[in-house]
Amino acid sequence: MTDKTNPANPSRRALLRGAALTGTALAAGAAGGRAMAAADPAITEIQDWNRYLGAGVDAAPYGMPSPHEAHVVRRGVSWLTAENTSSINFTPLHELDGIITPNGLCFERHHAGAAEIEPSMHRLMIHGLVDTPLVFTMQDILRMPRVNKVYFLECAANSGMEWRGAQLNGCQFTHGMVHCVHYTGVKLSTILEMAGVRTTGKWILPEGADASHMTRSIPIEKAMDDCMLAFRMNGEALRTEQGHPLRLVVPGWEGNMWVKWLRRIKVGDEPWHHREETSKYTDLLEDGRARRFTWEQEVKSVITSPSPQAPIAHGKGPLVVTGLAWSGYGTIKRVDVSLDGGRNWRTARLDGPSHDKALHRFYADVDWDGREMFLMSRAIDEKGFVQPTKDQLRAARGVNSIYHNNGIQTWHVSTDGTVENVEIS
Amino acid sequence: MTDKTNPANPSRRALLRGAALTGTALAAGAAGGRAMAAADPAITEIQDWNRYLGAGVDAAPYGMPSPHEAHVVRRGVSWLTAENTSSINFTPLHELDGIITPNGLCFERHHAGAAEIEPSMHRLMIHGLVDTPLVFTMQDILRMPRVNKVYFLECAANSGMEWRGAQLNGCQFTHGMVHCVHYTGVKLSTILEMAGVRTTGKWILPEGADASHMTRSIPIEKAMDDCMLAFRMNGEALRTEQGHPLRLVVPGWEGNMWVKWLRRIKVGDEPWHHREETSKYTDLLEDGRARRFTWEQEVKSVITSPSPQAPIAHGKGPLVVTGLAWSGYGTIKRVDVSLDGGRNWRTARLDGPSHDKALHRFYADVDWDGREMFLMSRAIDEKGFVQPTKDQLRAARGVNSIYHNNGIQTWHVSTDGTVENVEIS
Repeated sequence: MTDKTNPANPSRRALLRGAALTGTALAAGAAGGRAMAAADPAITEIQDWNRYLGAGVDAAPYGMPSPHEAHVVRRGVSWLTAENTSSINFTPLHELDGIITPNGLCFERHHAGAAEIEPSMHRLMIHGLVDTPLVFTMQDILRMPRVNKVYFLECAANSGMEWRGAQLNGCQFTHGMVHCVHYTGVKLSTILEMAGVRTTGKWILPEGADASHMTRSIPIEKAMDDCMLAFRMNGEALRTEQGHPLRLVVPGWEGNMWVKWLRRIKVGDEPWHHREETSKYTDLLEDGRARRFTWEQEVKSVITSPSPQAPIAHGKGPLVVTGLAWSGYGTIKRVDVSLDGGRNWRTARLDGPSHDKALHRFYADVDWDGREMFLMSRAIDEKGFVQPTKDQLRAARGVNSIYHNNGIQTWHVSTDGTVENVEIS
Repeated sequence: MTDKTNPANPSRRALLRGAALTGTALAAGAAGGRAMAAADPAITEIQDWNRYLGAGVDAAPYGMPSPHEAHVVRRGVSWLTAENTSSINFTPLHELDGIITPNGLCFERHHAGAAEIEPSMHRLMIHGLVDTPLVFTMQDILRMPRVNKVYFLECAANSGMEWRGAQLNGCQFTHGMVHCVHYTGVKLSTILEMAGVRTTGKWILPEGADASHMTRSIPIEKAMDDCMLAFRMNGEALRTEQGHPLRLVVPGWEGNMWVKWLRRIKVGDEPWHHREETSKYTDLLEDGRARRFTWEQEVKSVITSPSPQAPIAHGKGPLVVTGLAWSGYGTIKRVDVSLDGGRNWRTARLDGPSHDKALHRFYADVDWDGREMFLMSRAIDEKGFVQPTKDQLRAARGVNSIYHNNGIQTWHVSTDGTVENVEIS
């Protein structure tokens, strides 16, 4: 474990001294790379990419990752569901940095496969307790005032397999039901105002156009506050598996409510109690009662590297510990990191943009002594909510639930740098 | 042209009244979609995507755009260069929204094709006027403290074909040598401090590992200020064509200086006067003299829709006019839009994140009367720089130049909604 006598961040100066060890110093007086001649073919041998022309610009009108990054892909878990049309492909969080998830790597979860919709044949209807029922084409929606926001989307079942103990060896699987995207769309309030919600209208029911006809009940206050009808993600059109051509964005709330392939919004005076808010997406407690309408995704964090799929390959010395934190209640104010299973904590460095209800990137730059570590991160959001331990969650809710597991994750790092998913009590 | 008696933005209320016309109101008393029965097969006929399961999650571990968006690609111009290994693929700005450019659509410009580098065989050397010459592997660099920033990258030649008049019919080609990406990397100052720059060290020379061995001279003040060694873009590894595994980020300065496949940085006491800062990337004036070391990309904007590749297909009424603005000197403070060739201007609405030296998204929500328009946008940055007209640029610099054309763009919109690249004097 780390030196407990000095739990604070090492100073920048000390870090740079440490980091200097990672660059190979050339012998004083030796010219340029020559001192490396005997040791490093990367320098002594002229590489092919120095000698030959590379690919020209016609090669890839829609570009793809380097062949050397072919291992960076979404992955599923075959035993999780009976059919891959109602399953999950997880974001490879351990390979990513920053806060934006590339569209090709955003986790996907379907209930009847990804519907491939012809945009010109797509319609959005708004009806129910409104003054004027309306039907919109995609072109109609593209004529309304637009807004741009960065939001995380997390499935309520993210980390759900961990309620009864450490199960899955990799943050892609324990925490990969989350992504963070820059959306462009129209405020839902814009079309609700156009239709004219009656004073009796207290709830909305969005419905998807895929074969599962996904529906969820959402209170009118949330609908009028920050919900969006999104048609662009990270600049381009929504991807098929993210609801192309139109999805509902419900910032900070569970991903299941962000109805994809959105075709209908009904306004009503009470919730509908449909399948996805009764049989599913409720939290069964120890005594047989269930928590319902638990919409917000609570404050949460995870260390993405090192992690089981991203072990330490370089031995002791400077080590970048990095991860993600988020909260459905707003921005992240602080993340603490422990190297010793929660006995000592240091404040991590938050870096990059801080957006309301978006992923936040944190770093702890440590000087690893090469001994085993129990890595943990603990996030605190702008409302003051503190990420709980898994045991605290179980004490409150038992272990019957699938959803809303925002407990602190522990990774055990061995002296050889390998990393495992563990729990310590 | 637009109504000159009322050049101000229409009120939100008026806009919504206008926009209401774009939703198809159902007859009062008619139920849901039934009133549409005779008219709209999108509602009366059950679509295939309602009836059959869609694709499962194993289908695409690295996801691609919807087949219905296959037209959204980078495009080149065959006559621009002799070989496609030294050419340009332009960003389809007219199809995008928000400020992030998806990695697969980021414009690319090569001088010897895109080098495909094996990351484990890549090295970065720092030498010259330093106390300790150093060589780094990629793993070394991944052990240093990281930073995250959103920056635009613009080729100095963007809009360069327009110096002698309106040439290219589409903002993809007139303005598509720009993209905006969330970078993760290490501050360049981190490794310069590790090597120890001598007091005589006033310039750096970054060099690429591709067959063109791209080099540019950069003053040490800029190198120590905000330059980055980037290894991630929009979360994932750099793309091959953007310099995988390592590129220099030189915020706000011309794209040619953002050396890709970065393998070497030499520190010197004066600039090197290499080819790309003498024969190329200098601005030839009328009298035969040339401006040199014109690094900053000046304040600029363009309306991306409507534009020649994105005509108005919906007739008069509510129209979203949108575009991008940026400045190498910082953030954008204001964008004005004119519908009548610069006689009247209205202040556009900036929406979405505002980052230093990044793209900014603007909107003007107008009620189009169906008459012809001459659309223009004019950006003002945080330093107070105002985007000039093309004639002002020509008066100052003649028409010999290729680079640094940040003049105001004019699109002519016909009554049928088609759009052309024009100039008016």
